[in-house]
Amino acid sequence: MENFIFHNPTTVDFGSERQHAIGEHLAKNGAKHVLVVYGSDRVKRDGLFGDVQASLEKQGITFCELGGVVSNPLLTKVREGVALAKSEKVDAVLAVGGGSVLDSVKAIAAGAKFEGDVWDLFIGKAPVESALPIFSILTLAATGSEMNCGSVVTNEETKEKLGLNTPALFPTVSVVNPDLMKTVSRDYLVYSASDIIAHSIEGYFTATVQPNFQNRLIESIIKTVIETTEQLLEDNDNYTARAQFAWASTQALNGLIYSGTAGFNYPNHTIEHAISAEYNVPHGAGLSVVMPAWMKWYHGRNEAQFTRFAKEVFGLETALEGIEALEAWFDKIGTPTRLSQFDIQQSEFDALADSIVKHANWFGNADTYTKQAALEILTIAK
Amino acid sequence: MENFIFHNPTTVDFGSERQHAIGEHLAKNGAKHVLVVYGSDRVKRDGLFGDVQASLEKQGITFCELGGVVSNPLLTKVREGVALAKSEKVDAVLAVGGGSVLDSVKAIAAGAKFEGDVWDLFIGKAPVESALPIFSILTLAATGSEMNCGSVVTNEETKEKLGLNTPALFPTVSVVNPDLMKTVSRDYLVYSASDIIAHSIEGYFTATVQPNFQNRLIESIIKTVIETTEQLLEDNDNYTARAQFAWASTQALNGLIYSGTAGFNYPNHTIEHAISAEYNVPHGAGLSVVMPAWMKWYHGRNEAQFTRFAKEVFGLETALEGIEALEAWFDKIGTPTRLSQFDIQQSEFDALADSIVKHANWFGNADTYTKQAALEILTIAK
Repeated sequence: MENFIFHNPTTVDFGSERQHAIGEHLAKNGAKHVLVVYGSDRVKRDGLFGDVQASLEKQGITFCELGGVVSNPLLTKVREGVALAKSEKVDAVLAVGGGSVLDSVKAIAAGAKFEGDVWDLFIGKAPVESALPIFSILTLAATGSEMNCGSVVTNEETKEKLGLNTPALFPTVSVVNPDLMKTVSRDYLVYSASDIIAHSIEGYFTATVQPNFQNRLIESIIKTVIETTEQLLEDNDNYTARAQFAWASTQALNGLIYSGTAGFNYPNHTIEHAISAEYNVPHGAGLSVVMPAWMKWYHGRNEAQFTRFAKEVFGLETALEGIEALEAWFDKIGTPTRLSQFDIQQSEFDALADSIVKHANWFGNADTYTKQAALEILTIAK
Repeated sequence: MENFIFHNPTTVDFGSERQHAIGEHLAKNGAKHVLVVYGSDRVKRDGLFGDVQASLEKQGITFCELGGVVSNPLLTKVREGVALAKSEKVDAVLAVGGGSVLDSVKAIAAGAKFEGDVWDLFIGKAPVESALPIFSILTLAATGSEMNCGSVVTNEETKEKLGLNTPALFPTVSVVNPDLMKTVSRDYLVYSASDIIAHSIEGYFTATVQPNFQNRLIESIIKTVIETTEQLLEDNDNYTARAQFAWASTQALNGLIYSGTAGFNYPNHTIEHAISAEYNVPHGAGLSVVMPAWMKWYHGRNEAQFTRFAKEVFGLETALEGIEALEAWFDKIGTPTRLSQFDIQQSEFDALADSIVKHANWFGNADTYTKQAALEILTIAK
């Protein structure tokens, strides 16, 4: 097992009706004027924004707001948020939404404390030295952003989708109320399942140090996601299923499953970021296309672990059976497994492979994900 | 799933040689004069204390010291530490040892900030309002105290063994270096395995709300403890096994596995605290005697979960087979499974049952653990 430092300071306030406590959390942390960020107007129509407003007002907290964050969140919106946070001199930022809103808020929080352009923080031109305190009310469980210090933003001019990871970006408090996720569409529920499984398998299959304890924790997450997704597709009102789905999602990317492992990288995210930066497909949908193809391409390099996956997750014998079972499960729940489902043609693979190589450079796995490798994987996924 | 708040602010600095970083951690948190607490002189003989001293001196941190903490740590020693912390005006306390040293340090940290007698905090006469910052270097993995806010201390006058749980008692930084645990005796290794399994099963079997995800996390811990204990008994130099054992131990009692569960209580600890308060047997050894007896007595109340345990942990069919497999495993690794192994005679059961009832009152499960119940369980364990 590798040496590691585990520190996750985020408070997760988990459960039914907990959004009403957000004002209290903000007040306890000294916030007086807050920037509230959200995606579509749905949060206003369904009453959540009103709940937030009431909770802030009860604590005498004023706020300004920024809506319109989209999935695969955009740099232009982040820049807008940074400008607003600076001009309004807010002392905290609150995300009301899913992972895209959270990631935008993290970037805004860092950008608001930075003199230069916020994108410079993403491309490593300048370090994040501090950030405004970050709070969130999560409405979609998938990215794990509510309990980690990462943010992924797309620069729509350069078609780059880049991540920023630094301790200043841990949310102070995240409210996770599974009931708020009931209105998530069937499509986004299954894309989310794909996303959580992707977070779980990246290290599981690629790490050079991957102890059994961590394997078991990861398998616990994957089995829970498969089980609860099926329960939710059968009954959207199954609170216990949705709560486990959400808590498993948080645990998949809060540092726990990677603690003590080493040498892992993020091939599926590398490839998917290239796809969704170009085609703007939902991240989880992109991942369910990439994963089976990547697994078929990669399994020979770590056959024992793929065989373990087949056995522990699906009760099957061979690596290939496990991969096929995962692909079949994606098909069954209705998340895409082929590039053709995005209308991406073979003639576009060459340009896409170039983009994958570029993303592989950012992810630090360019040695493995050459243009030739990218083309092979895309061809399997066609 | 129940509502819950998850917040664990402790930084765990995990791995080989990490004790040398303790001075840095203390300095970063502003400590200038520290009380260092330990158990036997072994930490001096084996060089660990010297490492600590060098690390503190490098940061210009001075210290005073208190040795002699014993397992089932005693109130008199805690009172001694509180007096020393006050007279020396230390600004942090550092535990160098196992769970008993850590628990003593937590009590000292709270007592040092309290006007009255520290035992009043344990019996609920006064709340813990603050505590000195707590640091630790763990030398035995078992109690989980390195990443939680609990402390258990025995009042040797009243023969009470009581716990105190409050957020002020989270360690700021805990160093967990598996190499420092290599000198733990064979006996204490297997007692520790028993202790970790006990932490894992209390909620697993007694909770009224116990979702599958949490079940899987708990089973991951138990399976890891069983696997790595066997590996360590075979090869004491197996670092990977010891590291997983240690990290599983931390996860068993840092709040994760209880998050979202409800209605659980601590029957095995209730009974064992009564035993070790009276007979001063090692906590883990007491627990390996209590667990199989309690499981035989209790399983009918939650047969499905005991059947699940048998299947998931041992690959067996029935609840009773699972219980017998655990008892046989305790026998195999050499931790006691019978009260007679402590020379506790049936004639002493009556007094012991009275003490169990008293402890059940403190643990809040006196409705179930009546004198009659206590006598039944003791008789199974005889």
